[in-house]
Amino acid sequence: MFEAVELDQTLSREKFKAQEPETRAALLAAQRELREKKIATLILVAGVEGAGKGEVINRLNKWFDARGVFTHAFWDETDEELARPANWRFWRKLPAKGAMAFMFGGWYWDPLYQYTRKEISAAEIDEAATKITDLERMLHQDGMLIIKLWFHISRKTHTARLKNRKKLSKHISVLGDENREHEKYGAFIKSAERLILHTDNSDCPWHLIEADDKWHRDMSVAKAILAAMEQRLHEHRTRDRRATVHPFVTPIEDKPVTILDHVDLDVSLSQEDYVEQRNHYQRRLNELAWQAYDARRSTIAVFEGWDAAGKGGAIQRATNAIDPRLYQVISVGAPSDEERAHHYLWRFWRHVPRAGYMTLFDRSWYGRVLVERVEGFAEPHEWLRAYHEINSFEEQLVEQGSIIAKFWLHISPEEQLRRFQERKTKPWKQHKITDEDWRNREKWEAYRQAVNTMVEHTSLAIAPWTLVPANDKRYARVMVLKTLCTALEQALAKS
Amino acid sequence: MFEAVELDQTLSREKFKAQEPETRAALLAAQRELREKKIATLILVAGVEGAGKGEVINRLNKWFDARGVFTHAFWDETDEELARPANWRFWRKLPAKGAMAFMFGGWYWDPLYQYTRKEISAAEIDEAATKITDLERMLHQDGMLIIKLWFHISRKTHTARLKNRKKLSKHISVLGDENREHEKYGAFIKSAERLILHTDNSDCPWHLIEADDKWHRDMSVAKAILAAMEQRLHEHRTRDRRATVHPFVTPIEDKPVTILDHVDLDVSLSQEDYVEQRNHYQRRLNELAWQAYDARRSTIAVFEGWDAAGKGGAIQRATNAIDPRLYQVISVGAPSDEERAHHYLWRFWRHVPRAGYMTLFDRSWYGRVLVERVEGFAEPHEWLRAYHEINSFEEQLVEQGSIIAKFWLHISPEEQLRRFQERKTKPWKQHKITDEDWRNREKWEAYRQAVNTMVEHTSLAIAPWTLVPANDKRYARVMVLKTLCTALEQALAKS
Repeated sequence: MFEAVELDQTLSREKFKAQEPETRAALLAAQRELREKKIATLILVAGVEGAGKGEVINRLNKWFDARGVFTHAFWDETDEELARPANWRFWRKLPAKGAMAFMFGGWYWDPLYQYTRKEISAAEIDEAATKITDLERMLHQDGMLIIKLWFHISRKTHTARLKNRKKLSKHISVLGDENREHEKYGAFIKSAERLILHTDNSDCPWHLIEADDKWHRDMSVAKAILAAMEQRLHEHRTRDRRATVHPFVTPIEDKPVTILDHVDLDVSLSQEDYVEQRNHYQRRLNELAWQAYDARRSTIAVFEGWDAAGKGGAIQRATNAIDPRLYQVISVGAPSDEERAHHYLWRFWRHVPRAGYMTLFDRSWYGRVLVERVEGFAEPHEWLRAYHEINSFEEQLVEQGSIIAKFWLHISPEEQLRRFQERKTKPWKQHKITDEDWRNREKWEAYRQAVNTMVEHTSLAIAPWTLVPANDKRYARVMVLKTLCTALEQALAKS
Repeated sequence: MFEAVELDQTLSREKFKAQEPETRAALLAAQRELREKKIATLILVAGVEGAGKGEVINRLNKWFDARGVFTHAFWDETDEELARPANWRFWRKLPAKGAMAFMFGGWYWDPLYQYTRKEISAAEIDEAATKITDLERMLHQDGMLIIKLWFHISRKTHTARLKNRKKLSKHISVLGDENREHEKYGAFIKSAERLILHTDNSDCPWHLIEADDKWHRDMSVAKAILAAMEQRLHEHRTRDRRATVHPFVTPIEDKPVTILDHVDLDVSLSQEDYVEQRNHYQRRLNELAWQAYDARRSTIAVFEGWDAAGKGGAIQRATNAIDPRLYQVISVGAPSDEERAHHYLWRFWRHVPRAGYMTLFDRSWYGRVLVERVEGFAEPHEWLRAYHEINSFEEQLVEQGSIIAKFWLHISPEEQLRRFQERKTKPWKQHKITDEDWRNREKWEAYRQAVNTMVEHTSLAIAPWTLVPANDKRYARVMVLKTLCTALEQALAKS
């Protein structure tokens, strides 16, 4: 693969300087238009050590308008990052819509070096490649422009540069380990080829840059970035991205049977049984939360359900059992403008707990396939791909050791009506009932369909949905507590 | 002090339950109104171990509407927190306008325990109290409602509770050290008295709660919180906060002489000298940046100046010298809505670098006393108190080991005009000139005054301003590089 860019191409300083003003003006114009069009640009920079990635980034930082441009390296991880799924550190640095970020290595760094050092197998680097493709596709579909640059230098140049660098820099030691690895030029090149091969696709292609001659290198980079930017802008100008996607959506039929119809809403608990069982499971949950803390296992509990189904009450019965130092409740409302300027999952990545802690979500990322679907806030192609995006998100959480429990609190429309009316009379409940609740009620059937599809597509063995019969609040609360206890017990028994 | 709340007060369960619905409704109503009025509420909970702080928080979480309510404990610090000034961890958790947060211990925790353990002296706990008062006053003036609750229990109850707790909990070990300290009841009470005494003031008074009887305790808490909320709401309804403050502001006189008039704008560098000196200082800065990294000393460089004075160019000449892994450039534009919902310093606390890294601010917190003052975005009482707030912010950075350099890039109005006109002709500079720049130009005199006051009030020995003559860009860039090198050299020589 790399022979294709071992061409001894050069550019004289004079020619470079002659081309610079026009190139720079074009890059600036493209950057400005991308900003105006609210397109996020992510430039991933990777390649052989000694190819001059740092120099290139410095030049690009000089050429572009610095506002809204960030550079991120991932070489010095914090424990906040290490205590979360690996991708968390990338999510927190993703450029917002209209902004631009350079990432050194990005998500390629770890698999590349691990495979070079033989810490992971061929199957594992291919698995990493699949996950990377998945992540990039998701960001691309969300409108992000991802430009991937690979800097290649010949073995001869590589040897010369490393020697020179060691002479110059007193700080080689900081990056010592990685540099030693780089000296294994052949092994590194082989890893790179494998990873590039599997992550090169039409959405987010790799650009191989011959980097032996710095003037040629920098002008090639400029041209590659410019071409990618202009192509995206051209697409943006000439087609309506929405209109081109026509997913097949099953029309909502006249009340077909869904999984919710199989929930037995007549179950209930006496006050006496309730108090006994609640107290029992709360004590148990308190112990388990501390055990999970000791084992550094996080817990993520998702609460979805009909309006007035008792999400808040169920969450309270759980949190009342747990030391307040160990949990956080996230109530999901309208997103802030910073959240709106990112992929919809970004705001949830923000709240992924550190290892050992628990986060309870009062509504969640499932809003994408519930309210956003039903209300039309998300286009069909957006919520249709969300099932996969969500599964992949939860898989990453579980792989890092998180325990996931997801609850749909189910009530009948009649019970909902009763509760709405009750809320109007109790002074401390009046704030809970709004016009929107009444409007949502009219869309019961559409929501019923959406819930069914959601459970169908996202109830995984590693992150199952629990459908909670909630006409009887006591029964529902105990079931939530019990399910949480069981999930924690099973996970902790395995670890 | 605490004898005043050793009164053996009790409340029966029945009376509590009878009062609960009304109290709860009132709390909810107050919470809702505070949310609507965009008032942030911070409830600090501290006190003797075993007084039931966790239980109280759990009950309050049950009573209040959980949306927009967060609970924070600061017992398990991350390295991201430890690598920054102590207050950074509080700033990142401060409630936004309209939201509510409970903090366990908050900024009282460290001085309290350190003094109890005799790790700090009496003078040091008093100094801590002064800084706390300062921080609380600042947040209070920004509109935050701060409610401080101290839970007291008698020595007898304390002994009984700790014994009981050890029997119940397997997890006492997690908080072991702190618990052992708590057993020194007498010493702890003495520390607390000293700290409370010095931090009790009319803006943010302490509420002492007798916590021996849990029903009485919880109802007292509810009443204290309710009273504080209602008082704030009453104030909000009955007075225009702005109108009550009439600071004396010197009218801008007809072009008085300011410190800027003493900047010699005729200095310049030849191209040859420029290249030589730039290269020299860039090499030096590169080395120093790595040395600062090794020494875990952060650098914060602030760039302010007239439009077109060359801030961006000066920043680039600095960053081009430094490994991109070590620095971050923050361009300060309009705040996001999350930033707007906090004290104006919050958005800068977000970007405080980890120990060892460098952040360059293209415009900064000085906007408060420059553009916000001149354009009237901040009221006089707001920007007048900002000098002290900024000094205190920078003092905290320096105390943690940060090196601060602040640059005002100064040009003459004639030179600005020349550059504006030049920008119109160069294609890659056209984006830099907007109508706003022309408008700002008309306010030259007002800005001149604002800069003068700013330098007067915020040029500290620990964080001095450098006024950079910038009519000649070459001279300005070298001066910035040189000043940065000197600041780093001096700081690193001392450490």
